[in-house]
Amino acid sequence: MRTIDWRDDGIVLIEQTRLPDELVELRVTTVDMLVDAIRRLAVRGAPALGAAGALGVLLAVRQAAREGWSHEQRAAAITRLRAARPTAVNLAWGVDRVVASLEASADVEAAALAVLDEDAEACRAIGDRGAQWLLGQVGAPRVRVHTHCNAGALATVEYGTALGVVRSLASRGRLGTVYADETRPLLQGARLTAWELAVLGADYRVVVDGAGAGVIARGLVDAVVVGADRITANGDVINKVGTFPLALAAARAGVPFVVAAPESTVDTATADGAAVEIEERADDEVLTHAGRRTAPPGARAYNPAFDLTPADLVTAVVTERRLLRPAAGETFA
Amino acid sequence: MRTIDWRDDGIVLIEQTRLPDELVELRVTTVDMLVDAIRRLAVRGAPALGAAGALGVLLAVRQAAREGWSHEQRAAAITRLRAARPTAVNLAWGVDRVVASLEASADVEAAALAVLDEDAEACRAIGDRGAQWLLGQVGAPRVRVHTHCNAGALATVEYGTALGVVRSLASRGRLGTVYADETRPLLQGARLTAWELAVLGADYRVVVDGAGAGVIARGLVDAVVVGADRITANGDVINKVGTFPLALAAARAGVPFVVAAPESTVDTATADGAAVEIEERADDEVLTHAGRRTAPPGARAYNPAFDLTPADLVTAVVTERRLLRPAAGETFA
Repeated sequence: MRTIDWRDDGIVLIEQTRLPDELVELRVTTVDMLVDAIRRLAVRGAPALGAAGALGVLLAVRQAAREGWSHEQRAAAITRLRAARPTAVNLAWGVDRVVASLEASADVEAAALAVLDEDAEACRAIGDRGAQWLLGQVGAPRVRVHTHCNAGALATVEYGTALGVVRSLASRGRLGTVYADETRPLLQGARLTAWELAVLGADYRVVVDGAGAGVIARGLVDAVVVGADRITANGDVINKVGTFPLALAAARAGVPFVVAAPESTVDTATADGAAVEIEERADDEVLTHAGRRTAPPGARAYNPAFDLTPADLVTAVVTERRLLRPAAGETFA
Repeated sequence: MRTIDWRDDGIVLIEQTRLPDELVELRVTTVDMLVDAIRRLAVRGAPALGAAGALGVLLAVRQAAREGWSHEQRAAAITRLRAARPTAVNLAWGVDRVVASLEASADVEAAALAVLDEDAEACRAIGDRGAQWLLGQVGAPRVRVHTHCNAGALATVEYGTALGVVRSLASRGRLGTVYADETRPLLQGARLTAWELAVLGADYRVVVDGAGAGVIARGLVDAVVVGADRITANGDVINKVGTFPLALAAARAGVPFVVAAPESTVDTATADGAAVEIEERADDEVLTHAGRRTAPPGARAYNPAFDLTPADLVTAVVTERRLLRPAAGETFA
């Protein structure tokens, strides 16, 4: 099943805010609905945002035709969509890919659907390359993996990036226990990754984010495998907040720190991570939980959605085309 | 106000599980009530557990007299109390101190209350020494501090250890912004430290635990200051899970990582942290929040309450008597 797709002139996607309680589809028929879905993380994950961007341009074209928009109105809607979230490069990349077809008067629907097909194919290639490499590095019958946030089928069109590696290991009978950080504030690990691992039938444990570094130090995992929201030319990785401390712990323990992501996540136009805008989200995500406030009245939060893992801590970046070793000095430039 | 004290032949303590919603006192009149309060973290924090251990022996003596216990029954109750939580050395230390007075037929009430007085005095000395040292290290008008969990008045008898340093800085007009990790799973940072900082009138931000390392890497703080549940002879520090990744980030950023704790937390009988039992707590603390389950049915957790920060990452340990530099090779042995 695809987690985001095009059906009956609209986008259908899994409403991720309702998982793991309910598996429900959201039908998106306007650009504003899509922008809202992206902002409140009903659809999230860098590759899935690429697909949403691509399908969003198709949606804008259909909505413009239906509602008699001017060329300017359509362009403004596309610009709004492109800027719905600032950090992951894939959203803008997906938009730009289909806008290029639109400007070339090519088949926009075919261009958008090609993005989805390519992502699904890329994830399988990433998963297989990552699993193959890990099996070569780890001299054990089963590879025990630590992961953060959700870089699974829900974060892509299907299969997943970091969880693509996990799936590929599982399909070979070589997957050990998976440790999944819960990933505050929005608990994508406890809600989404745990749900995907349960469906996969994997042996897994949810840990609080603060426990991840200790899990690595105590030798409970053979590798850390995460996704990425953006990878800069030098190999710096911007990913969900809480990734960087895992990389620090992995480097100290001599455990491989592997980033699994499609080429569309690589931003060769940006030299390093220092230049990337880190999205800051609302205080309430931190100060409340399930509608209940946990901090005292008047408390303020600092809520960056991402952090920066410097290239020297990144053992390998696995894409659908290659495996690159930033910690060994290899760059995308 | 003391957060734990002896009044009318019983222990009174702030019921920490109800903060920040309500400030209520719990009156404890039996050893079993005290063991329960310790296990469910109504009273927590290494120095406060030392006070609870000391007062608990006094309570056992009074309960034994009231209920006509045999010597063996009283000894069994004290043994149960001593083992209520395994990791912090202070609980056993507080018990043993007063048991020694009991065995010497000395004044047990005076011995127990002396533990409280000494802790209150020790925290002020720790706070002042830590603040003084930080002001010497940090060449800025105000020191911005990152802290984890709650090492405040609520974790001690009064004033606090890590928050004692913060209070001392504030009293000199030299305190900058304080970043407090929320500290999952039980949110002692968001609930308790935020409450103490609000009462103090400090400028503070609550961050999710995964964000702490990035806060340090981005230069937002001048020092990390935490408490400890146990410090071994070589300077290894066992503290609330999520402390170790902050120490890794601080070492990388060249920011001092300071542990503030009374001498009663130092366990010179244990060579290093590898030998210390790390308490594992119930899965449900991780998998639920405010009574609501967040992970899918069947999910399992791994829930260590503490982690180990190796001595080479600990810039300074500040006690009421001395300042020791484990990262520079100084030991307690």
